[in-house]
Amino acid sequence: MYTYHKITPEILEKLKAIVGAKGVSADPDRLVAYERDEGVEREFFHLPDAVVYPATTAEVAAILQLANEELIPVIPRGAGTGLEFGAVANHYGGIILSTEKMNRILEVNAEKMYMIVEPGVRTEDVQKAAGEVGLLYAGDPCSGDSCFIGGNAGTNAGGNRAVKYGTTRDQIYSVEVVTPTGKITTLGSRLKKVSTGYPLEKIVIGSEGTLGIITKLVLKLVPLPKCSVNVLAVFPTVDEAMSIVNALPKAGIEPTCLEFMDDDSVRVTEDFIGEKQNTGTGERNYMIIQVDSNDEDALDDLCVDLDELCRAHGAVDVFVADAERIWKVRKNFSDASTTECPIMVMEDFVVPADELASLLKALEKISADQHVPVRSVAHAGDGNLHLDILKKGIADADWPAKVDAFEKAAYEAVYGLGGRISGEHGIGEKRKDLMVTYTDPVELELMKAVKKAFDPNNILNPGKIFELDD
Amino acid sequence: MYTYHKITPEILEKLKAIVGAKGVSADPDRLVAYERDEGVEREFFHLPDAVVYPATTAEVAAILQLANEELIPVIPRGAGTGLEFGAVANHYGGIILSTEKMNRILEVNAEKMYMIVEPGVRTEDVQKAAGEVGLLYAGDPCSGDSCFIGGNAGTNAGGNRAVKYGTTRDQIYSVEVVTPTGKITTLGSRLKKVSTGYPLEKIVIGSEGTLGIITKLVLKLVPLPKCSVNVLAVFPTVDEAMSIVNALPKAGIEPTCLEFMDDDSVRVTEDFIGEKQNTGTGERNYMIIQVDSNDEDALDDLCVDLDELCRAHGAVDVFVADAERIWKVRKNFSDASTTECPIMVMEDFVVPADELASLLKALEKISADQHVPVRSVAHAGDGNLHLDILKKGIADADWPAKVDAFEKAAYEAVYGLGGRISGEHGIGEKRKDLMVTYTDPVELELMKAVKKAFDPNNILNPGKIFELDD
Repeated sequence: MYTYHKITPEILEKLKAIVGAKGVSADPDRLVAYERDEGVEREFFHLPDAVVYPATTAEVAAILQLANEELIPVIPRGAGTGLEFGAVANHYGGIILSTEKMNRILEVNAEKMYMIVEPGVRTEDVQKAAGEVGLLYAGDPCSGDSCFIGGNAGTNAGGNRAVKYGTTRDQIYSVEVVTPTGKITTLGSRLKKVSTGYPLEKIVIGSEGTLGIITKLVLKLVPLPKCSVNVLAVFPTVDEAMSIVNALPKAGIEPTCLEFMDDDSVRVTEDFIGEKQNTGTGERNYMIIQVDSNDEDALDDLCVDLDELCRAHGAVDVFVADAERIWKVRKNFSDASTTECPIMVMEDFVVPADELASLLKALEKISADQHVPVRSVAHAGDGNLHLDILKKGIADADWPAKVDAFEKAAYEAVYGLGGRISGEHGIGEKRKDLMVTYTDPVELELMKAVKKAFDPNNILNPGKIFELDD
Repeated sequence: MYTYHKITPEILEKLKAIVGAKGVSADPDRLVAYERDEGVEREFFHLPDAVVYPATTAEVAAILQLANEELIPVIPRGAGTGLEFGAVANHYGGIILSTEKMNRILEVNAEKMYMIVEPGVRTEDVQKAAGEVGLLYAGDPCSGDSCFIGGNAGTNAGGNRAVKYGTTRDQIYSVEVVTPTGKITTLGSRLKKVSTGYPLEKIVIGSEGTLGIITKLVLKLVPLPKCSVNVLAVFPTVDEAMSIVNALPKAGIEPTCLEFMDDDSVRVTEDFIGEKQNTGTGERNYMIIQVDSNDEDALDDLCVDLDELCRAHGAVDVFVADAERIWKVRKNFSDASTTECPIMVMEDFVVPADELASLLKALEKISADQHVPVRSVAHAGDGNLHLDILKKGIADADWPAKVDAFEKAAYEAVYGLGGRISGEHGIGEKRKDLMVTYTDPVELELMKAVKKAFDPNNILNPGKIFELDD
């Protein structure tokens, strides 16, 4: 356990000298907005000691220099839409460093297809700015309308288009970073290939704010595909739906999105939004398959191929869906599920995509054996499963033990299939015990050594992902 | 400067106990095979003190444990086809660890589209094994017929298909690694997305054997495109040829290869192989554009689009070339160039692809101003330029200073355009002074800290990429 200093009035004065009087607060009424993220588990709610709102990279650097000298934890935070309490203070306390004032789009270069932004820009605004010049920013987390691009980088956020375009790390050319000791550098470059030393941006991105604070990002833009179609394939069983996950790449079909919703998820969400797809009344497991192309005829041919392939794998209905209607179902799932069952645990399992069917089968068995109801949606194309463990028909007193038992069995299955704890949400504070349990000790030791190399005093988001031995 | 121990007879005995009597040698006649790589600069030739040939991961681990305890440098080496002396001993001496006995293909899984190999498998054999099951291993360095897959991983080798498929790092799911202290772990996974801690495989790959020794690789296989065409576009000027580098992605055309050869390179290579393309007698700058598709009609349409686009950008001739004939020209360039002018320096500049035209213009000016002849080929689609600086008409006494002056001006241009020293060959021993000159000090400091975190005694390939402060 590391020990840190408390925020004294003197420290507050020094912070004010950096960011101005309005740029820092230790008022509990104000701090309460930062005690949590979108995660619901109350045991992880934690008031920070202060919040600072730097407006420039130089201010971020000055704050980290001060914190490093005075041994005060700093927790970088974007929009707070995370689910694992990675951007919330923990037992160490400390200062929340909010990037909300660093919210400018600095350059959109349509000619060279990149965009330079500050970390506090909303992802949706990045997408819109790209669209305005006829290009695509391919990152697309489900929380895009509220999350910040800096937070996407911090957790290496995935989303719906990751199956084709990769995760946030793949959308970033370079990042300006303030190191935990308060130095400024730029990692990465606008290069398609490079063998000039270690590509440290690849570990800073996705480090959940433990290796540096990202103060500027150069984002990749790509051409907007000329035409796009959303095919909805309806399967009577999960197994049949899952069978196309492997069949598609083998047929040379590369979807932009491949989203799975199980029957229960479909029902709950359709009830929630009060709008039903015309897909019959039997068991309906959905695969939403978005395919893009620059050639309309080729796309038509592809739709025919898709129809044949899905039906050959058991689909009872395959049709070109209205994009808005079908994505409304997918994007409302999370709200629908928590509304229908407010007490639940959401998992972020990831396995090789070709093992997703096996994972779902294993989880179905665990659910039946342990009498724990679950429902699932998945970014199927990249093997990322969001399973909701539901407190339905389970007594309050039994719930924690039931969740533990389910998770234990589930993670054994996930790791047995070559999977990991988190596909896109990160580890944060919430899953760090699991991280220790399931990570190879030599790998974990290397991660800790790298953290110490970047942050010798362990002041940047300490205790997140893993606890450092002092 | 670090100090190391010498290889004593006792150490040799300990090595023999690990790998057997035949698995180690300190015989100078044998060691001479390891004093160099494919680089030609004699000042970097250096005899190692011994060579070991481990056959298993456990043997590699035992060797590194011993070396770490006894403070002896270990230099991992594949086929020795590098150009920057990264796999050659330097002033620190030490043991060459050759992976040539670890040369098994352990599994080819066509169903799940991956292959597991040891590091000493030739890249060409990886490609063939993938082809035999109807799949593609997308890595394709020009030295594929002789280099090892482990060396490709070590330098993050690029090659001809990188513009579409990325570099070697992008072809690797995971690596089994022996750390510098002799521990074994696996970094990475067969996952398309993951947010579970730091993706350390991304920095071990491309670390030129300074962060760990790769003892096993799980490689990505992809579907073989159903049809493929090589278009040769002939341009009267470099400028016009370069103009299509930006035009292609903007037109939504994603070539698999986009290779540039300037007029002099074409002439020298055609003379060397004694085979002339039917492309006229004027100035001929080549763009070899390989496009792949799963749809023959779409590919035909694409060829029409390509023809129009290239002619609109000044091409005097555009035609579908015989694949074997045209790639023979490209792949023989290096031998042709060194045969025509044995004393030369080969550069590995990389800039953003959209800045390659500007770089070529700047280099042309430097060449004219300084009276230093050059010729160029480029992996144009990813901005990677192999420029040969030629000792033609330059006196022996003037040559070193001429090269220095040219490089100084050239690197200013490269870095001015956001580029880097090496696109795919690495830094090795040869370019480490340049690395210090051109790398941001904070970034370099972080790289050094990471190296120390992995290798506290600095025994693994010490002094490569950069010299560590002790």
